[in-house]
Amino acid sequence: MSKEVECGGWAAKDASGVLAPFKFPRRALRPTDVKFKITHCGICHTDLHLIHNEWGSSKYPMVPGHEVVGLVTELGPGAKKFKVGDHVGVGCMVFSCLKCDHCKHGDEQYCDKLVWTYNSEEDGKITMGGYSGFLVADEKFVVRVPDNLPLDAAAPLLCAGITVYSPMKHFGMTQAGKNFGVVGLGGLGHMAVKFGKAFGMKVTVISTSPSKEKEAREVLGAHNFIVSKDSAQMKKAAKTMDYILDTVSAPHPLDALLELLKIDGKLVMVGLPDKPLELPAGVIIFGRRSLAGSFIGSIRETQDMLDFCGKNNVTSMIELVPMDYVNKAMERLRKSDVKYRFVLDVEKTLKP
Amino acid sequence: MSKEVECGGWAAKDASGVLAPFKFPRRALRPTDVKFKITHCGICHTDLHLIHNEWGSSKYPMVPGHEVVGLVTELGPGAKKFKVGDHVGVGCMVFSCLKCDHCKHGDEQYCDKLVWTYNSEEDGKITMGGYSGFLVADEKFVVRVPDNLPLDAAAPLLCAGITVYSPMKHFGMTQAGKNFGVVGLGGLGHMAVKFGKAFGMKVTVISTSPSKEKEAREVLGAHNFIVSKDSAQMKKAAKTMDYILDTVSAPHPLDALLELLKIDGKLVMVGLPDKPLELPAGVIIFGRRSLAGSFIGSIRETQDMLDFCGKNNVTSMIELVPMDYVNKAMERLRKSDVKYRFVLDVEKTLKP
Repeated sequence: MSKEVECGGWAAKDASGVLAPFKFPRRALRPTDVKFKITHCGICHTDLHLIHNEWGSSKYPMVPGHEVVGLVTELGPGAKKFKVGDHVGVGCMVFSCLKCDHCKHGDEQYCDKLVWTYNSEEDGKITMGGYSGFLVADEKFVVRVPDNLPLDAAAPLLCAGITVYSPMKHFGMTQAGKNFGVVGLGGLGHMAVKFGKAFGMKVTVISTSPSKEKEAREVLGAHNFIVSKDSAQMKKAAKTMDYILDTVSAPHPLDALLELLKIDGKLVMVGLPDKPLELPAGVIIFGRRSLAGSFIGSIRETQDMLDFCGKNNVTSMIELVPMDYVNKAMERLRKSDVKYRFVLDVEKTLKP
Repeated sequence: MSKEVECGGWAAKDASGVLAPFKFPRRALRPTDVKFKITHCGICHTDLHLIHNEWGSSKYPMVPGHEVVGLVTELGPGAKKFKVGDHVGVGCMVFSCLKCDHCKHGDEQYCDKLVWTYNSEEDGKITMGGYSGFLVADEKFVVRVPDNLPLDAAAPLLCAGITVYSPMKHFGMTQAGKNFGVVGLGGLGHMAVKFGKAFGMKVTVISTSPSKEKEAREVLGAHNFIVSKDSAQMKKAAKTMDYILDTVSAPHPLDALLELLKIDGKLVMVGLPDKPLELPAGVIIFGRRSLAGSFIGSIRETQDMLDFCGKNNVTSMIELVPMDYVNKAMERLRKSDVKYRFVLDVEKTLKP
């Protein structure tokens, strides 16, 4: 086991959420560890919540970032999955118990002892994320990024991508020709549109913002666009959709969305509103509709997604920004002023 | 086509909901019609709602009753499914369009043009239900009651039974050894317990009433009983159930029930609370849980259920009452003072 290495990154030192350069020890390599030089890291809304301690669970100093990609630089003596130079990534988690039913069935995201990529404890130390120069993690939690994918636009696949891909696969939202609705056109929603199209589904974007229609249709190639506040449009689309993926994390009415589903249709929520939603039971009872939730995705699914993205040239639409733009990026993210994901150009702009 | 026949039954003549003897024309036989002498009819909570016009859709005079069983007495010239003397039943519906996707796929309960057994319109006339001497319906909507089942205790299978059996089959709540929770121990709930046991599942009754534990365990054979208001009991049972069938139609908290489900567990609602329920999205997201609804069941499923009941000797626990007890039965039903279903002894007590 090698000594712990010092690593440079950017951290929030308190709940003000202001990020600034920071030196911290990066975990020494254990036998099956992979160390990689981070080239890019996506900025997820979770980062914004956590740096400001909005969920009450924040530990400082905090180095955020769980959409991390880069190139392998060093391997533990027992690490066999990768070789130096490989393109790799780490998403939201870096370890789990490996023993519970969820871990055994390859659903480690539901393990009670999950270790998050940052703001989590492992061996008595706080984990530090991808707003930094290097990352060390067990090879089981490191995934391969196909060589044909640009690393910057691939970074958001590690969280935004898998969060929508996992439920799409798990709940069968993959059949060509089916009508697939995507609620919300942000970091998650635009990935759902891309996957929906790659699976050959007819994709409808459902949004509160009429201003997004042009881009949804012309840039992302959505087949249809519905303004959710326009009750005439919503009524016209009633009972037309096989599946809906709801990516919105602001409180919003569910009944009008559920009415869009055909009999036996399914709506899956991946956004997490901070208040309970209202559910009139009749809308699910009289249509045998289902409402489900899903949380990120497993390592197996993440690798499956990356392979799928490699074959189908699916990546995120991003705004690549230098490391010292991170505080400004957070401000703009708070206002949803980004199409559709900020990605930090760590490799070129992180000062040593 | 024969002439319309006069039929005697009991009807509510206005929203006071008082039932009294009533003569009305029963439909003349069409080619594929079956006419049967009603022996028994269950009293469903829906009857109580409709006689008092609580849903605003009531048409008077109203002859209620959609858990109808009896013996075939006459057949239209093209009716081939039954012969005179057969034990038959009719549930909630007597016709549908037969052309839409739902009808074609054998899900006619979701047909937009469904004709209800009573309080519905067909050929410009109001349909009349099973609180009467005879019923005439197209053979497609008449099911066979196995000869070994007592007709009185079989009657509630036509609504209470199929309402729980259909989602159990549709959502896979049939695997021996799985943990199956039943919320509410009334007309629907006690049938769900019986089916759950017949499928070999481990059945837990979840109820607000501690007083129901003894009967749930000793008479119905439930493996476990949880008082839903006892947060310690609920907490202890967290993440233990594969499936929950929720039969409660009073508003109630969903999050505590959903917490009982394992990861990937499913809760299906068949009771219809009159106010929206509160759904905190986290409880489904962090467990990839599903919440679905289901409405009665198809004719195919109803026949499948009756055959299953015949093979497994499953019937409803009933209180058999004479026809002139119906108003008193409605009063008691309002107070849930029945174990678990009133059944009218039409054959022996309806005065001609």
